[in-house]
Amino acid sequence: MNSAPLAGIDIDIVIQEAALKIDPTADLLDVIISETPGLLTVLPILYVAWADGELSPEELHSIRQKLQEKEWFSSKEKASIARWLDPDRPPSPQLLNAWLKVIRAHSDEIDPAVRRSLASWGIEIAQASAHTEAEHLADPKTQTALEEIESILGILSNEAVREILTDATALHRDEPFGESSLDVVAMNRLLEGEHHELMHDLFAILSRPEFQYPYDIKNDDYREKVLSWCQILAEKDYGKLSFPEAYGGKEDTAAFVTAFQTIAYHDLSLVVKFGVQFGLFGGSVYNLGSEHHHEKYLADIGSMALPGCFAMTEIGHGSNVRDIETTATYDADSDSFIIHTPHENARKAYIGNAAAHGEMATVFAQLEIGENNYGVHAFVVPTRDKKGMPLPGIQIEDHGHKLGLNGVDNGMISFDQIKIPRENLLDRFAQVNEDGIYHSEINSASKRFFTMLGTLVGGRVSIAAAALSAAKSALTIAVRYAGQRRQFGPAGAPETLLLDYPSHQRRLLPQIASAYALDFAVKKLVADYTANAAAPSREVETLAAALKAYSSWHARDVIQECRECCGGAGYMANNRFANLKADTEIFTTFEGDNMVLMQLVAKGRLTEYKHQFHNMKLFGLLKYVISQSGKKLAEMNALVTRMTDPEHLRDVDFQMGAFEFREHHLLVTVARRLKKRLDDGMDSYQAFMECQNHLINMAHASVEREILEAFIAGIASVEDEDLKRMLKTLRSLFALYRIERDKGWFMENGYIEEGKSKAIRKEVARLCREIQPDAINLVNAFGIPDSLLAAPIAMGTDA
Amino acid sequence: MNSAPLAGIDIDIVIQEAALKIDPTADLLDVIISETPGLLTVLPILYVAWADGELSPEELHSIRQKLQEKEWFSSKEKASIARWLDPDRPPSPQLLNAWLKVIRAHSDEIDPAVRRSLASWGIEIAQASAHTEAEHLADPKTQTALEEIESILGILSNEAVREILTDATALHRDEPFGESSLDVVAMNRLLEGEHHELMHDLFAILSRPEFQYPYDIKNDDYREKVLSWCQILAEKDYGKLSFPEAYGGKEDTAAFVTAFQTIAYHDLSLVVKFGVQFGLFGGSVYNLGSEHHHEKYLADIGSMALPGCFAMTEIGHGSNVRDIETTATYDADSDSFIIHTPHENARKAYIGNAAAHGEMATVFAQLEIGENNYGVHAFVVPTRDKKGMPLPGIQIEDHGHKLGLNGVDNGMISFDQIKIPRENLLDRFAQVNEDGIYHSEINSASKRFFTMLGTLVGGRVSIAAAALSAAKSALTIAVRYAGQRRQFGPAGAPETLLLDYPSHQRRLLPQIASAYALDFAVKKLVADYTANAAAPSREVETLAAALKAYSSWHARDVIQECRECCGGAGYMANNRFANLKADTEIFTTFEGDNMVLMQLVAKGRLTEYKHQFHNMKLFGLLKYVISQSGKKLAEMNALVTRMTDPEHLRDVDFQMGAFEFREHHLLVTVARRLKKRLDDGMDSYQAFMECQNHLINMAHASVEREILEAFIAGIASVEDEDLKRMLKTLRSLFALYRIERDKGWFMENGYIEEGKSKAIRKEVARLCREIQPDAINLVNAFGIPDSLLAAPIAMGTDA
Repeated sequence: MNSAPLAGIDIDIVIQEAALKIDPTADLLDVIISETPGLLTVLPILYVAWADGELSPEELHSIRQKLQEKEWFSSKEKASIARWLDPDRPPSPQLLNAWLKVIRAHSDEIDPAVRRSLASWGIEIAQASAHTEAEHLADPKTQTALEEIESILGILSNEAVREILTDATALHRDEPFGESSLDVVAMNRLLEGEHHELMHDLFAILSRPEFQYPYDIKNDDYREKVLSWCQILAEKDYGKLSFPEAYGGKEDTAAFVTAFQTIAYHDLSLVVKFGVQFGLFGGSVYNLGSEHHHEKYLADIGSMALPGCFAMTEIGHGSNVRDIETTATYDADSDSFIIHTPHENARKAYIGNAAAHGEMATVFAQLEIGENNYGVHAFVVPTRDKKGMPLPGIQIEDHGHKLGLNGVDNGMISFDQIKIPRENLLDRFAQVNEDGIYHSEINSASKRFFTMLGTLVGGRVSIAAAALSAAKSALTIAVRYAGQRRQFGPAGAPETLLLDYPSHQRRLLPQIASAYALDFAVKKLVADYTANAAAPSREVETLAAALKAYSSWHARDVIQECRECCGGAGYMANNRFANLKADTEIFTTFEGDNMVLMQLVAKGRLTEYKHQFHNMKLFGLLKYVISQSGKKLAEMNALVTRMTDPEHLRDVDFQMGAFEFREHHLLVTVARRLKKRLDDGMDSYQAFMECQNHLINMAHASVEREILEAFIAGIASVEDEDLKRMLKTLRSLFALYRIERDKGWFMENGYIEEGKSKAIRKEVARLCREIQPDAINLVNAFGIPDSLLAAPIAMGTDA
Repeated sequence: MNSAPLAGIDIDIVIQEAALKIDPTADLLDVIISETPGLLTVLPILYVAWADGELSPEELHSIRQKLQEKEWFSSKEKASIARWLDPDRPPSPQLLNAWLKVIRAHSDEIDPAVRRSLASWGIEIAQASAHTEAEHLADPKTQTALEEIESILGILSNEAVREILTDATALHRDEPFGESSLDVVAMNRLLEGEHHELMHDLFAILSRPEFQYPYDIKNDDYREKVLSWCQILAEKDYGKLSFPEAYGGKEDTAAFVTAFQTIAYHDLSLVVKFGVQFGLFGGSVYNLGSEHHHEKYLADIGSMALPGCFAMTEIGHGSNVRDIETTATYDADSDSFIIHTPHENARKAYIGNAAAHGEMATVFAQLEIGENNYGVHAFVVPTRDKKGMPLPGIQIEDHGHKLGLNGVDNGMISFDQIKIPRENLLDRFAQVNEDGIYHSEINSASKRFFTMLGTLVGGRVSIAAAALSAAKSALTIAVRYAGQRRQFGPAGAPETLLLDYPSHQRRLLPQIASAYALDFAVKKLVADYTANAAAPSREVETLAAALKAYSSWHARDVIQECRECCGGAGYMANNRFANLKADTEIFTTFEGDNMVLMQLVAKGRLTEYKHQFHNMKLFGLLKYVISQSGKKLAEMNALVTRMTDPEHLRDVDFQMGAFEFREHHLLVTVARRLKKRLDDGMDSYQAFMECQNHLINMAHASVEREILEAFIAGIASVEDEDLKRMLKTLRSLFALYRIERDKGWFMENGYIEEGKSKAIRKEVARLCREIQPDAINLVNAFGIPDSLLAAPIAMGTDA
């Protein structure tokens, strides 16, 4: 070995002493320049070689040997190199610090482009110092030789280069993102639509000091607060919006749903309490009852003088409402019904407004007259006196603390042979006369059952809308935070905005797109539903089930992602994610468990399919296509399955085509699987069981097609060309992101090839980058007032 | 039209009257049999035609016409058929009810197999009634003719068949699931391993009445309760387990991690408080301090006489610890350090134990001596007096309510020029002498920084373990519930167990498999880590980061799925999901944000790759293979990419091969992408930014390979053949489920073809069915005592 420890040690001592002085750099430079000026050329390489402690002894030896072979170093310089690259005697922290200072001292004057190579950087430093005379510095061979050595440091050396920079110009060459040209006000008006004024009136109320969010509050206090909030809204007649004018309402169901959706930007216990009282309890009396019920109850329900419950679910039967076990037996002697809970499992459970405030309940029970069971019907049953005491025979149990929605008083109710007058049957769709004779215009028991459940459709429409509001709140907070929060970055330069990270973009921006897509889909649902809220068609029922499930899952995923994107700050309750998450969590379960709803959607599609199949219209050709092998399909569409240009990928026909293909393919194949099983003599229940996951996938595909379709239709009616362009970009992001998520399926079925799949992934990333500058404006266009958002991290301060 | 309303109306009136009697069936039968006995053959078809209200008028007409063409009906019968299939005059509810009773009256005696066709069913009823004499009943042509008509009802008719059954034999032909032969005790002993006794001692303590879970509790009360719990554990010396014996410990880090993992089956605020006090605060003093710190503090920390904090994170810098801004400036005059918070954004934030109980903190700060910055170092700083009052110059702010972990008192701390003696530097890895001279054995600043952060490795190991415990608790509750909860089902038969639904199996059973896989991976991590806890190697650091991220995401997803699988019951706080979810939620963020950790894992892999690349060993061939097109690769392995038999799919070599291929492919391709950018002169920071998602995907693939590898190694060492077989099945489910989730990628890269992808999906479903009978035993083998599980729905009652 050529090591000459003495020379090295001398310099080390000088440096050690220099480090103690206030600015040792000058001294150190003097030493180096005077004794071994050639070392300046290798200082950047030396520093990086040691900086991250990752080089192996072999690599250090290798660098040492190669450097010492260079004839332009003096023997003293070679000795120092040997000393400074000795794996057994790493340089002291002071020496490393000193090197760093020397490098930095000259770096500001050097062209950043040059500094990307440690070799050229070293040469520039040596030249800048003007103490070195050797011609070899100008010789390209020197640089080549040094670069060869630098390459041993590998990829990570470039990482280390950042550390030796102090200036803001740095090596960071990010193209600054463009300014957003989105007209926030115009987009907001487009989203808010016709109920603009109603929303802003509500915003004004919900922004009042008494509506401030409470934290760390006991259930009892929280419940009273939510009750008082609800009463304020009732006083302003918001609860009655869908009721007839005779009872103080406006017979405007669309306005009621809008109010619900707007209140959902505030506390979600409030929106649920509001929904239970006016939507479920009030709605059941209004939609299932007749004139005399309206007259007797609606005004008091709307003013909250009569707080009530919607008692459908039982412990034993939630999803399977048809088999609930509470009975309503007609008693001919007293011309009344006896409401009874036959056993513990038949207790009404999870009933909102039951534990503390409800004085009456719409109770769903099996109607029995004599030996005949007429299925599930609804009855109004008083449960509490005006002092809040449960009436005799009524037992109420408090569910206590829940995962969320603790401002709502959920409880269990059981009935011990409670006698109610015959008129308490909500008898719009089925009547029992004074002789105990049952009559209904709806002959099919199944159809009657679904009609009785019509109230739930309104509930599902409302939940779809409210879940979207919650997702928008979360997105607004997280995107605004990502637009101001910085973490990590090139040395010396400002740290990087979270919103500039590709991973962060991928987490948040497709969710903005899906929120916009859902916004249009929910609008369509609300319009379809309110066109005939009293008797929703099967199509509306299916769409409500589909969007309720999709929007609640969407909210669950979006809020979770947003929380994680805000790190520790996202965990603090006052930044809102805590309640947004916990309160909306049950949206996937209540008003119909999502898994059950998806199967309902699947059956709806099968029914349509059956009709279409009989008519041999739409599906004739498709069936033929599908019956061909996947391979053949691919051959037929080889051109399309392989097309990867952005123009094609962003084309609405490609996107819609993919969504439709997926739905139809899943539909036709599941129908075939079901038919085969039935043909083989299998019970339909079992056949559906065996195809359950297939059915659920089909339902998913179906909902997403519905959403895309509504988004496309919505965009078509937009006049402002700038907004239209923006929305089309969002549509592409929504559609391609969903196709990417399901790329496995699309490839399995020959609809896209590998290359196209990769192209779609890239296009999603490109769309994210494209939308990034507009991200904050896009969430601001949701129009949620700061007073309701309330999260400190969304307000331009960090804490 | 051939309608003859009169005949129909007559019968309707009879039926209407009959329906009012107690048992009208006999009367009705009499009427039908005497007047129009032939109608019995079509009663099932008629009932189903109307039952679900889904038939179109055209379809009704079509059935009516076809029936009336049959020559075997009398003219009276034809008239009734015409009347009963008139779309404009649907039968009354009473008539439908009456039909139902007639059908049911005879059904019990009929072979269930026959009843699968409405046609044969009707014929059997007619024959059983013994009032019909016509020979046509025995004629096969009759049945064929009726079946043709039945087919118009379509798929859904089979669904309706269920409704007309009352008996338990039903059509439901589910193969009953087999009994589990799993030896729960043996599996439990295998999982608990060597620390069996320690775990059970802790279980006994945590089962005591004072450890009952509190609900609906204010933060202050909750914090005091958790403090008292923690003190009980401290009294029993659990906090000191990893400390030297001289200070009451056992110098057994593995035991400490086991204790942590065990406590995580209880309240998670407790485990975090325990972790902050003993793992982070105690661990930092133990691992970063030297003898004199140990002597002065460890005994008091272990007994909780000195409650303390771990103050690293600042508002402005969480993930990027290297750039925290709190300073520790050496003051030569007083031979002390001045700890200072330069601005609001540099406040220590989210610090556990800070808001209420901590009296001292390990504070991480930039060490500055003169003009030199030596980077982040740790100091012990007193924060409160014994009365709990913050010391002068120390400002403490309470974070208040959080999403979860409200039993832990998180707060912010800021320091206003706090002077601490020089000896308060935790100086194991770097010292400052009385002349203010800095010395460290670790020369590389980067290496020194990571060594100082070593305490976090222990934290990450513990979080990986605790997250797994929480996931196991959730799985135990949800799987037990699914094993007793029923909903929907064939009429008359018991409703279907949730655990029998394929969708439910798919939601829960792969998660049992992943919990087992993670169990073995965490065991390996704990073993590797505790082999040298004081100075974890880079490999252990990477594995800890990887498993902390993976296990915390896994817990998040599993607990969510479990909550949803328990419906409304899962939302009630006493069923535990509320706290399990909320408390573990932050696990994805603290002790290193998961996204940042995944990038750390990716860089670790790249570093290894660099070394291997230099050595030209492993990757030489692979690189060659990868450089070929995906197509070529597929051709090379055509046999494997197309193999679909279960034996192959369950083969460990296929599974491991797929995991390795994915990791290596992502690694090589991202390395190539990075290199290209660096070669083009791009800054490494920017290059890493552009490849961020690719890097994260690679890290994911890497963790899953590590987990599978650990699972395989763990299984290899199991001696009991039955357990081994069970574990191998779980391994297949884990591996195939993960491959299925990433099937898009595998297809994109030609590793599997479409047919194989579908085969994998089917195999996952098959494995779920196979494991189903063992599901409850598998979660019981986790061995969580009922006293800790506590969820009523997991205890064999429904409420």
